[in-house]
Amino acid sequence: MRINGSNYKTIWFDPNEKSIKIIDQTLLPFQFKIISLKTFDDIVNAIKTMQVRGAPLIGATAAYGMYFASLIQEDPSFMIEKGEELKKSRPTAVNLAWAVHRITKLTSSLKENFQSKVLEECEKICFEDIAICESIGNHGLEIIKTIKERNNLDVVNILTHCNAGWLATIDWGTATAPIYKAFQNGIKVHTWVDETRPRNQGSSLTSYELNHEKVPNTIIADNTGGLLMQTGKVDLCIVGTDRVSSNGDVANKIGTYLKALAAYDNNIPFYVALPSTTIDWNLNAGKDIPIEERPSEELSILTGLDQNNQLQKINIYPKESKALNLAFDITPAKYITGFITEKGICKANADSLKEMFR
Amino acid sequence: MRINGSNYKTIWFDPNEKSIKIIDQTLLPFQFKIISLKTFDDIVNAIKTMQVRGAPLIGATAAYGMYFASLIQEDPSFMIEKGEELKKSRPTAVNLAWAVHRITKLTSSLKENFQSKVLEECEKICFEDIAICESIGNHGLEIIKTIKERNNLDVVNILTHCNAGWLATIDWGTATAPIYKAFQNGIKVHTWVDETRPRNQGSSLTSYELNHEKVPNTIIADNTGGLLMQTGKVDLCIVGTDRVSSNGDVANKIGTYLKALAAYDNNIPFYVALPSTTIDWNLNAGKDIPIEERPSEELSILTGLDQNNQLQKINIYPKESKALNLAFDITPAKYITGFITEKGICKANADSLKEMFR
Repeated sequence: MRINGSNYKTIWFDPNEKSIKIIDQTLLPFQFKIISLKTFDDIVNAIKTMQVRGAPLIGATAAYGMYFASLIQEDPSFMIEKGEELKKSRPTAVNLAWAVHRITKLTSSLKENFQSKVLEECEKICFEDIAICESIGNHGLEIIKTIKERNNLDVVNILTHCNAGWLATIDWGTATAPIYKAFQNGIKVHTWVDETRPRNQGSSLTSYELNHEKVPNTIIADNTGGLLMQTGKVDLCIVGTDRVSSNGDVANKIGTYLKALAAYDNNIPFYVALPSTTIDWNLNAGKDIPIEERPSEELSILTGLDQNNQLQKINIYPKESKALNLAFDITPAKYITGFITEKGICKANADSLKEMFR
Repeated sequence: MRINGSNYKTIWFDPNEKSIKIIDQTLLPFQFKIISLKTFDDIVNAIKTMQVRGAPLIGATAAYGMYFASLIQEDPSFMIEKGEELKKSRPTAVNLAWAVHRITKLTSSLKENFQSKVLEECEKICFEDIAICESIGNHGLEIIKTIKERNNLDVVNILTHCNAGWLATIDWGTATAPIYKAFQNGIKVHTWVDETRPRNQGSSLTSYELNHEKVPNTIIADNTGGLLMQTGKVDLCIVGTDRVSSNGDVANKIGTYLKALAAYDNNIPFYVALPSTTIDWNLNAGKDIPIEERPSEELSILTGLDQNNQLQKINIYPKESKALNLAFDITPAKYITGFITEKGICKANADSLKEMFR
């Protein structure tokens, strides 16, 4: 998608530098900076510090991490070892483990062209992700069309939480793909963007990327969605997810559950957009998904522009106060209207998921 | 209650200066500063800019505003006129209108000692509010005791939203009064403090005042309460309110509704603490309560301390982004376990409210 009018992906291989290029997402929305990752440790660090974030993008980045591992040693068991290291960099996103597994499975029987085969697989993961997201967009577009027609709407108001935008994937995004598709098809859409404390991915990333695609959007405090739903200002919710258990429970950015409750209470469709790689078939229920606890400074220390347009970090909390920073919550399947996947729409339950993907 | 070990009220009359002293709450938690309000316009400004906030404190401040009005002109119809002006300074809090009405009712038939009678009434409003809040504390204490015993808890974890603390009243607070009473009675309590975006009254005021009373507390992003409830980390929710309609619907700081939904979904008691002055008997339902829209800069511009311990304002949003700042939402009565009032506990419905107060 576009930033300042030019098309980008979130990650790509630079054959000259033998490096991976990414957009440093910790600097957004204040600074658009492309950085090079040149080693395995660069990759781990980029995932940990959230220079890349979003389940699909984390997966692709991890794959490239495995490519750097292959540059150190062309050895299947070394690859498994480095894969384990990568998996620890973010515990909740299942795509990370999935991407690592895809590469170790490949290398387990690889006899020749070790490095180039691994790199090829990384590129394939990226291309596939783009196709998956575009397909999610097309299926989601049908939902938006239906809601527009059924409710005779001039503008379709869509609420989203966190950033499940193209910046969280390679292109298109998951939750945003239907919005971009609708916009490109001439349907008037307006997006309510949950700020998404503590890291504000909604305001910093989702609003940013929607702005650059010219899609009308308004940032709201995370507290606000409930009232907007009560007062008829939301026609549809679409969020992404970091992991779905086989029964259809959804782990997503903390606060998703609260919006799902409000949508349910107000009879507003609540959809979760996801590539099927996000489904963890080994987990029976959402309660088994590990919840990442992150540093409390992500709550207390905020970055922004001061009056001189300089980046400043400020502490907004009383100095003596403690804070707890949990990154994800679990939305029970019963509050989810449906999943928008690359294969189509399905219900949030074990049978529907199995029927669509097994 | 205490700040830095000394006892304070949030508002008091200084007979030497003929001024009203308040704690400038816009500077908290970074600076503890007492300021003087000397005119009617100072009062309107203090309410508008939220140097004072919280329904009961707004009411008391408005009463003192009427005192300043009486200094300009000792005339009942002039008082009514100034009362109307005051009522426009914050639209949602019913206590403001209540306090204005109490003074205009007094002055309507006042023949002598106009100013001193008005001042006396202001002081009475303050004293009564303290007694009311303490009584709320005692009734709420019984709830905490019951929950502690019933669930055999070592520590009672209480979630609160925004600041319904002593800083929102004259002393004790409404939602915090039971917490302070429990703490003073040797019951181990821990408070989950919702940050409460956009103005962060939870982190800036509630955590601040709990710290100064040594009550254990942890700040969380507003998104977090749902997960904590799902995982058994919350035993009880207590919030305040700005206005209650006669059927028991509650207007309170935006985001309250979402926490009530989560409490309901997880069978956690959700109480609203209020003085009976907060009940608007003329309103049949919450949907009729006007919702204040405040400047969007309250979302985008944050104040905090930089690395040199200097107060800085930063803009955290993309420059092109729009934001919407709605200050309150409505929690339907059906999600409220009960009201903690100065007269005792009652159910959130028309009959229980009438029975207790009419």
